[in-house]
Amino acid sequence: MRGRFISIEGGEAVGKSTQIRLLADWLKTHGRTVTVTREPGGTVSAEAIRALLLEGGADRWNARSEALLFAAARADHVARLIRPAVEVGGWVLTDRFLDSSRAYQGIAGGLGDAAILDLHRFGSEGFLPDCTLLLELPADEAARRALLRDGASSDRIGGRDAAYHAAVTQAFRGFAAAEPQRFRTIDASGDSAVVHDRIVAAIAPLMA
Amino acid sequence: MRGRFISIEGGEAVGKSTQIRLLADWLKTHGRTVTVTREPGGTVSAEAIRALLLEGGADRWNARSEALLFAAARADHVARLIRPAVEVGGWVLTDRFLDSSRAYQGIAGGLGDAAILDLHRFGSEGFLPDCTLLLELPADEAARRALLRDGASSDRIGGRDAAYHAAVTQAFRGFAAAEPQRFRTIDASGDSAVVHDRIVAAIAPLMA
Repeated sequence: MRGRFISIEGGEAVGKSTQIRLLADWLKTHGRTVTVTREPGGTVSAEAIRALLLEGGADRWNARSEALLFAAARADHVARLIRPAVEVGGWVLTDRFLDSSRAYQGIAGGLGDAAILDLHRFGSEGFLPDCTLLLELPADEAARRALLRDGASSDRIGGRDAAYHAAVTQAFRGFAAAEPQRFRTIDASGDSAVVHDRIVAAIAPLMA
Repeated sequence: MRGRFISIEGGEAVGKSTQIRLLADWLKTHGRTVTVTREPGGTVSAEAIRALLLEGGADRWNARSEALLFAAARADHVARLIRPAVEVGGWVLTDRFLDSSRAYQGIAGGLGDAAILDLHRFGSEGFLPDCTLLLELPADEAARRALLRDGASSDRIGGRDAAYHAAVTQAFRGFAAAEPQRFRTIDASGDSAVVHDRIVAAIAPLMA
């Protein structure tokens, strides 16, 4: 029996990694084999690309090279980890996937959504999650959490300005509205246990 | 006045680097500002991608990730080195460029020429050389030279089998036939000084 592939998306500091941990534990107690992974990265080769993407100054990569590197890492991640795990019945939870490239590089970065989708068709045969959980916080709450977590420092992409991050949030909303069958938007405010309950409710149909 | 961008292409061990050195010297004695570069690589960021591409076992990268990495490196190389140098009147000589991706990954690797050209349009706005010098040797002569140079060892791509390299040679011939205005096919057999004279004759129209 085929497993499930779930991506968890959202802006910076909306609580993605905490919720992935809680969901993975919950799925295991319900008898599922679970692989937790992340993008960029997830395989040895893709993690090597991740290191290139996140190191260096703000201008280390131009937008087009950056999008190509994300697509290269994703192609490896899909072919060598996600697809094989799902084919043998596993559940794969990934912290970010294609929709992050669409939001960050495609919309906020100005390359266009169609170009990012083209790269995904080439690299990964357009492989999509069974379900994408979009974690949403009010912008001021997200900014407060990011500051608490990272202080003044952040990586090359997390460190971009407020207008950029607002564009990312808007982009995710647009994707969710356009693909209601794939996306579940989750209110990420409040206690992590409460958010977890919302996620469990959202993925219930996939447990059948 | 705009400079010139010349790519030097061909299979393994046809004498590309020797001829690039001789051509660069000749152009300098004729008053040109010359930049010699190579692919994958040529800029700090693209050389970091080169290291990823050439290291590791034969299966380090799947074909699609590999093609995306080449396109990412080329996008940086074009934007930060080739285009700026040509715009201020320089001559840029590169050891391999787009046509190597088309021949190795597109044709011999089976991804298709159209897909490689699409990646180049996305990454580098389809930027092409003013002239591509295709160095050709009879296959047995190329194999003999490669063996002399590398012995049994070679890098991830140079080390592929004879059928793969024969497909590369055929692919280059096809590109040259399809774009006679851009390509100059150079007989690379014989003494390097003789081959150099053939190259000088071929690029004479660009010196005007």
